[in-house]
Amino acid sequence: MKRITILINCNDKEGIIANTTNFIHNNNGNIVYIDQYVDRENGIFFMRLESEFKKDTFFLSNFKEQFKKSIAIPFNMSWEVYEAGKKTRVALFVSKYDHCLYDILGRYNSGELNAEIPFIISNHPDLKPIADSFKIDFHHIPVHKDNKKEAEARQLDLLKKENIELIVLARYMQIVSGNIIAHYPTSIINIHHSFLPAFVGAKPYHSAYKRGVKIIGATSHYVTEELDAGPIIEQDVTRVSHSHSINDLVMKGRDLEKIVLSTALKLHLERKTMVYNNKTVIFT
Amino acid sequence: MKRITILINCNDKEGIIANTTNFIHNNNGNIVYIDQYVDRENGIFFMRLESEFKKDTFFLSNFKEQFKKSIAIPFNMSWEVYEAGKKTRVALFVSKYDHCLYDILGRYNSGELNAEIPFIISNHPDLKPIADSFKIDFHHIPVHKDNKKEAEARQLDLLKKENIELIVLARYMQIVSGNIIAHYPTSIINIHHSFLPAFVGAKPYHSAYKRGVKIIGATSHYVTEELDAGPIIEQDVTRVSHSHSINDLVMKGRDLEKIVLSTALKLHLERKTMVYNNKTVIFT
Amino acid sequence: MKRITILINCNDKEGIIANTTNFIHNNNGNIVYIDQYVDRENGIFFMRLESEFKKDTFFLSNFKEQFKKSIAIPFNMSWEVYEAGKKTRVALFVSKYDHCLYDILGRYNSGELNAEIPFIISNHPDLKPIADSFKIDFHHIPVHKDNKKEAEARQLDLLKKENIELIVLARYMQIVSGNIIAHYPTSIINIHHSFLPAFVGAKPYHSAYKRGVKIIGATSHYVTEELDAGPIIEQDVTRVSHSHSINDLVMKGRDLEKIVLSTALKLHLERKTMVYNNKTVIFT
Amino acid sequence: MKRITILINCNDKEGIIANTTNFIHNNNGNIVYIDQYVDRENGIFFMRLESEFKKDTFFLSNFKEQFKKSIAIPFNMSWEVYEAGKKTRVALFVSKYDHCLYDILGRYNSGELNAEIPFIISNHPDLKPIADSFKIDFHHIPVHKDNKKEAEARQLDLLKKENIELIVLARYMQIVSGNIIAHYPTSIINIHHSFLPAFVGAKPYHSAYKRGVKIIGATSHYVTEELDAGPIIEQDVTRVSHSHSINDLVMKGRDLEKIVLSTALKLHLERKTMVYNNKTVIFT
Repeated sequence: MKRITILINCNDKEGIIANTTNFIHNNNGNIVYIDQYVDRENGIFFMRLESEFKKDTFFLSNFKEQFKKSIAIPFNMSWEVYEAGKKTRVALFVSKYDHCLYDILGRYNSGELNAEIPFIISNHPDLKPIADSFKIDFHHIPVHKDNKKEAEARQLDLLKKENIELIVLARYMQIVSGNIIAHYPTSIINIHHSFLPAFVGAKPYHSAYKRGVKIIGATSHYVTEELDAGPIIEQDVTRVSHSHSINDLVMKGRDLEKIVLSTALKLHLERKTMVYNNKTVIFT
Repeated sequence: MKRITILINCNDKEGIIANTTNFIHNNNGNIVYIDQYVDRENGIFFMRLESEFKKDTFFLSNFKEQFKKSIAIPFNMSWEVYEAGKKTRVALFVSKYDHCLYDILGRYNSGELNAEIPFIISNHPDLKPIADSFKIDFHHIPVHKDNKKEAEARQLDLLKKENIELIVLARYMQIVSGNIIAHYPTSIINIHHSFLPAFVGAKPYHSAYKRGVKIIGATSHYVTEELDAGPIIEQDVTRVSHSHSINDLVMKGRDLEKIVLSTALKLHLERKTMVYNNKTVIFT
Repeated sequence: MKRITILINCNDKEGIIANTTNFIHNNNGNIVYIDQYVDRENGIFFMRLESEFKKDTFFLSNFKEQFKKSIAIPFNMSWEVYEAGKKTRVALFVSKYDHCLYDILGRYNSGELNAEIPFIISNHPDLKPIADSFKIDFHHIPVHKDNKKEAEARQLDLLKKENIELIVLARYMQIVSGNIIAHYPTSIINIHHSFLPAFVGAKPYHSAYKRGVKIIGATSHYVTEELDAGPIIEQDVTRVSHSHSINDLVMKGRDLEKIVLSTALKLHLERKTMVYNNKTVIFT
Repeated sequence: MKRITILINCNDKEGIIANTTNFIHNNNGNIVYIDQYVDRENGIFFMRLESEFKKDTFFLSNFKEQFKKSIAIPFNMSWEVYEAGKKTRVALFVSKYDHCLYDILGRYNSGELNAEIPFIISNHPDLKPIADSFKIDFHHIPVHKDNKKEAEARQLDLLKKENIELIVLARYMQIVSGNIIAHYPTSIINIHHSFLPAFVGAKPYHSAYKRGVKIIGATSHYVTEELDAGPIIEQDVTRVSHSHSINDLVMKGRDLEKIVLSTALKLHLERKTMVYNNKTVIFT
């Protein structure tokens, strides 16, 4: 069997589901999962479809051509088709914190991620031994005031050379350049160490401590030009109390950060995320 | 517009979704929501569909007849169709605890429940003043060793007279008779004051205290012949510590119980629950 | 036995615990619970002590005088002593939403709150029937642009006449006047329908929906002059998704609001809250 | 400054706190934290005290002797004194699952654990490369029906040679021998992949799936002779739905398991756990 995932969004209209499912059926496909959502306020339709086809009679390029002609163009859809099992090529960006890196690489190692990770980029050399122990290339590209253009060029060069499709900022403590963001729309995942939109900016645990909140959080989102304001993929929280020092918050926060970032990464790799109007539709 | 909800389950086969959505489309219906799930282990297909039809050309009985002939019989489906907005007739059974009763009646009063509650049955007279304050009939039907048959007969009589479709046991401290259970398959909702299957039986908070658990829970489930073993609709939990007395657990538990029971009730009223093999499919 | 609770805060110094516990011991008291915390950053010491004394040899006024002389003055303490079982006099302020009101009155009725609630004030007449059904006085005091001074005067008059010690804003949709806040420092509890500091202001669920957050919350805090910025007593959160409409968020939020507000109220009534520097120390 | 932690339990009596804090004060110590709890049902008193002393005038052995004579013997206490900063010697037992191992070693590497980990024991060779990458000795000791005594002897030999104080079963898929349990009372920490006491035994995710629960959990506990019944240190849970396959439950469960086990380990290392009557007192 060949399994594909189709992601669709378009203006809401009658007959989209019937026509699409009919098309699949008439092409000898079996629909395995269907997830669908209508944003009634904005009149936008979203659908995620997993279908299975017999291996010997299914040709992806042919299917896509037919789908485009019969369904996508008539309904004026934005759409994508993914083959199940095809691994997404991912680059990790890190700095000095290692908890998110260990979490991702541990999962990678045990086959939990449908991804290929050819290299890690870091603005500091500290985490190279971890990359080595997992046998993944590590590129130390320092970034400072005077070499920003040059660093970005080296980054882009590596990303291009290895056909990277997704960038994961695993506590990368630098702002990614607008140029890279433009090359990777809704394809850069960041972890912010607070429950956004509370505590944007650089020192959220200090702010949370100062404000005396009883719950702290972490937020994984796609990176957009506006800092800490991109569409949210996943969030989680945990309880804290007055008795926790800032250092306690940092340590509790790390446990959130790594799980939330890895969960967001997996949702993306399984094509369960769609973005519109700076919001996400997450099919879980 | 007329809105209906269709619930379907049958053996999994190719073409169910395409045929069903096609049928709706061809009958000038618009599919608003579609939720679908396949139990791969047992090869069973589940679907929940909300569709809208033009008021003046849609006749429910006619639609059902066509659906039966064209879809339900060919695919050998179990199926039900519900009209949106039609209120379910609900009876509440209570004893002496009032927190679940207040929670349900408060929601009922503010229009949160798509239900009609004609009466409350209790084996104790204590909560009558609450029923009075909400202007709902209160029937005190004591139950003891020697009057079980008679009490059951009075209960069934009331249930029948008022065309009750759903029974909610809001901390009713009596075992419901097998006869009533037989009359109301997957139509009696109970709240158990533990995280089932942990701590079945009568004194779960005492058991949880004794075992030293760090989390307590509540479970809402459909009532079946086997005690505390019916299909689970909703569960929730909260943290506790050694410093909590049994009485603290009871009070924390009450907050769980009322929210979990009301959530389960709402899921049922919105036709988001399906049952098979003693498990539930909950479309949220 | 006579049980008292002592709340203490002062600059941190050696010997506070030893001297205080020694004092209690030498006065024939038995320490039942001791909760203690040092804010190391600001060098402030906090303690909550529950002690039991023999009824016939313990005189509160005498104890307080001795404590002041021997302990409180030497350590330059802020301190308070409460007799266990003495009920706090509480006024509820409401508007049109009834879920928090039902939750508080349901608990009040079943004896869960160590409080006396002589009356409810509202700027709308809608919830009077609920007050009536619980047999609590209901004062309808409309507030609009032109009668603010007069409304405040009526409110203060009632508060004074009934010796109110604590005000609970149970979704009161008016800003409490600075004059009343000045009369009730850290004695007005509000429920804000968001996870503060995210989404301050009037329509948090709309903002949360627009931002696409995956978790919504509620925050109970003491009211201070600065809107939505007072010290936080309790917070809780629940998961939401893109599929929830604003109305769904509102309904899910209500379940949070009522539990969070009632929890905060109980913490205050049990003297488990202390405030400093706009933060709370909550001994749970 | 020298910091020590004192753990005490004894029958509840008047004057324990006063006498103990007084003793510390008179020995020129400053009490930094005090956590205390009385199990009223069984009349048992628990206390955890952190105190600071001037380095040059404090001698631990002298302090312990005085404490024993003046406090511990008169009150008939069970007691222990720990020097802050002294690392606990820990051995890890693993089999084939690597998520808990990565989580612990990642924390170990970044200095989060107050521990020394001289070696890892496994009944399978699979995880040796991970041990190598963290430069920790790895001992492959296969266990099967016919070599149980011999395997146990090798394990005990290693444990003794390296002065191991704590054993962590990081998803070790073998039952630890009664002999080892006897050598390490409340010093073997296990992670069970369910919310105990629900789903004891070997395949909890299969049981949870079959029962249709809406929440799954993980439990970390001290190992006792009775399987899965030892005192609980930490638990956590996460939501699941009908749409999750057993494999999904396993993956979601892993995220719980590793955080719960590491949290329990840290609580033990910080001397925040006390055990009595098969229950734990956890001072957090």
